[in-house]
Amino acid sequence: MDRRTFNRRMLVGGGVAAATGVTSMSLGAVQATSAENPAKTAPAGGAVRHLKLYAEKLADGQLGYGLEKGKASIPGPLIEITEGDTLHIEFENLTDVDASLHVHGVDYDIASDGTRMNRSHVEPGGTRTYTWRTHAPGRRKDGTWQAGSAGYWHYHDHVVGTDHGTGGIRKGLYGPLVVRRKGDVLPDRTITIVFNDMTINNKAAHESPNFEATVGDRVEVVMITHGEYYHTFHIHGHRWADNRTGLLTGPDDPSRVVDTKICGPADSFGFQIIAGEHVGAGAWMYHCHVQSHSDMGMAGLLLVAKADGTVPGYDPPHHAAGAAGDAHEH
Amino acid sequence: MDRRTFNRRMLVGGGVAAATGVTSMSLGAVQATSAENPAKTAPAGGAVRHLKLYAEKLADGQLGYGLEKGKASIPGPLIEITEGDTLHIEFENLTDVDASLHVHGVDYDIASDGTRMNRSHVEPGGTRTYTWRTHAPGRRKDGTWQAGSAGYWHYHDHVVGTDHGTGGIRKGLYGPLVVRRKGDVLPDRTITIVFNDMTINNKAAHESPNFEATVGDRVEVVMITHGEYYHTFHIHGHRWADNRTGLLTGPDDPSRVVDTKICGPADSFGFQIIAGEHVGAGAWMYHCHVQSHSDMGMAGLLLVAKADGTVPGYDPPHHAAGAAGDAHEH
Amino acid sequence: MDRRTFNRRMLVGGGVAAATGVTSMSLGAVQATSAENPAKTAPAGGAVRHLKLYAEKLADGQLGYGLEKGKASIPGPLIEITEGDTLHIEFENLTDVDASLHVHGVDYDIASDGTRMNRSHVEPGGTRTYTWRTHAPGRRKDGTWQAGSAGYWHYHDHVVGTDHGTGGIRKGLYGPLVVRRKGDVLPDRTITIVFNDMTINNKAAHESPNFEATVGDRVEVVMITHGEYYHTFHIHGHRWADNRTGLLTGPDDPSRVVDTKICGPADSFGFQIIAGEHVGAGAWMYHCHVQSHSDMGMAGLLLVAKADGTVPGYDPPHHAAGAAGDAHEH
Repeated sequence: MDRRTFNRRMLVGGGVAAATGVTSMSLGAVQATSAENPAKTAPAGGAVRHLKLYAEKLADGQLGYGLEKGKASIPGPLIEITEGDTLHIEFENLTDVDASLHVHGVDYDIASDGTRMNRSHVEPGGTRTYTWRTHAPGRRKDGTWQAGSAGYWHYHDHVVGTDHGTGGIRKGLYGPLVVRRKGDVLPDRTITIVFNDMTINNKAAHESPNFEATVGDRVEVVMITHGEYYHTFHIHGHRWADNRTGLLTGPDDPSRVVDTKICGPADSFGFQIIAGEHVGAGAWMYHCHVQSHSDMGMAGLLLVAKADGTVPGYDPPHHAAGAAGDAHEH
Repeated sequence: MDRRTFNRRMLVGGGVAAATGVTSMSLGAVQATSAENPAKTAPAGGAVRHLKLYAEKLADGQLGYGLEKGKASIPGPLIEITEGDTLHIEFENLTDVDASLHVHGVDYDIASDGTRMNRSHVEPGGTRTYTWRTHAPGRRKDGTWQAGSAGYWHYHDHVVGTDHGTGGIRKGLYGPLVVRRKGDVLPDRTITIVFNDMTINNKAAHESPNFEATVGDRVEVVMITHGEYYHTFHIHGHRWADNRTGLLTGPDDPSRVVDTKICGPADSFGFQIIAGEHVGAGAWMYHCHVQSHSDMGMAGLLLVAKADGTVPGYDPPHHAAGAAGDAHEH
Repeated sequence: MDRRTFNRRMLVGGGVAAATGVTSMSLGAVQATSAENPAKTAPAGGAVRHLKLYAEKLADGQLGYGLEKGKASIPGPLIEITEGDTLHIEFENLTDVDASLHVHGVDYDIASDGTRMNRSHVEPGGTRTYTWRTHAPGRRKDGTWQAGSAGYWHYHDHVVGTDHGTGGIRKGLYGPLVVRRKGDVLPDRTITIVFNDMTINNKAAHESPNFEATVGDRVEVVMITHGEYYHTFHIHGHRWADNRTGLLTGPDDPSRVVDTKICGPADSFGFQIIAGEHVGAGAWMYHCHVQSHSDMGMAGLLLVAKADGTVPGYDPPHHAAGAAGDAHEH
């Protein structure tokens, strides 16, 4: 049973996730494939799915979302759906303060807004079902074109600390949401990088996450910003299109290709790279390009290995294995 | 006589505005229409129009632009024109300091620059005619494609306080300019949101403007930033395309669809949403997503009512009716 | 021998540059032409070129890159190549500290990364060859579309002061790189504007560079940001498309046309304007639109002259000729 099939069955089953220890709710991931084979693409959506999501306090006092009790992470689990899908999320608040689930990009009634103003938050120990819907693009009755829900979105708390969730976000209550369109190219793996205040994924400076890949892997990056500051996300040796998917649609796509992008709190974007394409294996730095931010530690590595597993020229520091192990990867 | 006809006649007439108390110079607005009917679109431009514009001190000591004496507002009046139109603006400075009118996006001789350097400002009590021209896109003689003037632009003072108009902008001397292209979809209404320093439309924190709509209204938002700070504009439950019109041109438009966008001083963009589309009625928050900015009050509401006028789940605070009444709407 | 031919021969020759005093390595520049004639476009790339580049201390204590010893400038020399070209840059570090050459956008092995981590920096007095490769767009074997290398990129030091080159960038070790695509429209001239911390091209406030053009010139602007701060680049009377080239590809290009753009450290973009198109000759201001930044001197002029050389309404200050002479132009 391949991973896709497994995940679909898991979701239809509803409660299976808790038994399997998954930390992502992935409907679209596929087996690793090289750029030599025809790219796999997202099938049509339209399913109705159910999911449990918990907010809880982590051992270090931070807060996280998780698919199982005791398994919360920062960022929260990657949630991948396809245009046409509906997701019912039974959210349980295991923290000792009011918390909520607010989402960007998708369709939801005001009762799923996740704000105190709309009384759509959850008291400590309480549960609430948030429903996220999505739609494919199409033409309206008035003749205008309607955008679909596809995008690199995210979810976060909107009530901890302040009515805008400043305390919840600061402590780690955020996560990535990918909505795909039928036909979108599927990655081999997805990594999430969140510039939250002066941290990456709430890691202390110099403990920023590293990510591992092999030359030829199609790696998807979901990049989210949170908190107070603007940043410029930069990655060495790789670049992407500044459009919906991060991939040019073809020779007529006028989008700018970039390797640096300014972003502010709650901005999000995503893209796919072929690891090491045109540049080979190596320890490729990614970092905020605001000089003081990178100097203070907002930098990590994309470790692109050769097929034999080696990364040329890279001397892992003594703690490197652990740091890589801490990385939030899917 | 529909509003379009009225406005066109008003402008041809030149001085009629003063007699009618209008606070916008709208050439394109139409009667409210639902997304069920064919969308109305902008007709061809090419007219030559005349307008009076005043700068004056408001009761609270701020400054504003207005189409009539004593009627200045912050933001200044919405000016809508179509590619091909020329606008002669007789600007009268009723303040007690030098002031000017500087515009973004459209065509003007250096004599209409509105800067002290080019001596195109106006002393207290003086008048000056600024001429704004626009052009449709087309091919140059050298074979290259020339962009048209269409866009969500804005105008502001460039001399009060400093040679860059820092004092004038801070006190309220700014306003929206929409240049449409023949065939552009016309909204049912246009609202202007200006993030000026730490205010929205120069309102004190927690007095931020609310805007009202009914489910199905095609609401256009003109979003302008001014002052010192960067912001991220976010709206709940609605999203737009990050392109010229904020509407995808069709299935091949690769533009990113967003609900959050970083912006800095003098950036401007616009978009149209169908109020409540896919999400229904409700009190939908819009705010700066820089956490401290929203916490300090840079947030307002888009109150989307059902056809019966009710907004589900919304308890207006005691001052809400007044706050909504203060909103800058057209 | 026209300039193109000259430059191509210069580069094939390798060492000729040192004898001719050129301060740009321009493969694409052409004789001034008006918009009346068919636009010249970039020919196909594919050449392998060699270049010497020096880092050295300037008389005022700042640092610069140059194509000849004793000729370093801030910004460093404009490097123009075309997709398919390979550039071998023999970099010699004439400063008294470790320095490097890190580039954005193009293809390079990890040995050309220019970072201390990858030991690709250069000790004082040392030399190192950095190789930059580029590729045209095309379809991958997996059927997906691969972006080409074309773009408005830049290069900078990555090791002076900190492991992110904060000291090197602050002192002036940065420069523009333009990678063209076959068929891209060639400008009459290219100017580089770098917002580096609170300076333009490391000039003191109120000594910001002015640039000169004649009505009808096709002027290309390469805009780069560096340092700590975000800025909004704005130019009076001219505007551009927010896409790869800054020029709309045609009537179906949905890109926003702008005259103001937020940018953060290491962001870069470029565009071409026809000087004075639709607006005529004049002293057209360009500046950062963050109000305190422009007030503190982040502003310069694009002096667009009539065919007779006069700039209407412009009174050069006593130091103006010198200031214009200091401008970084090609």
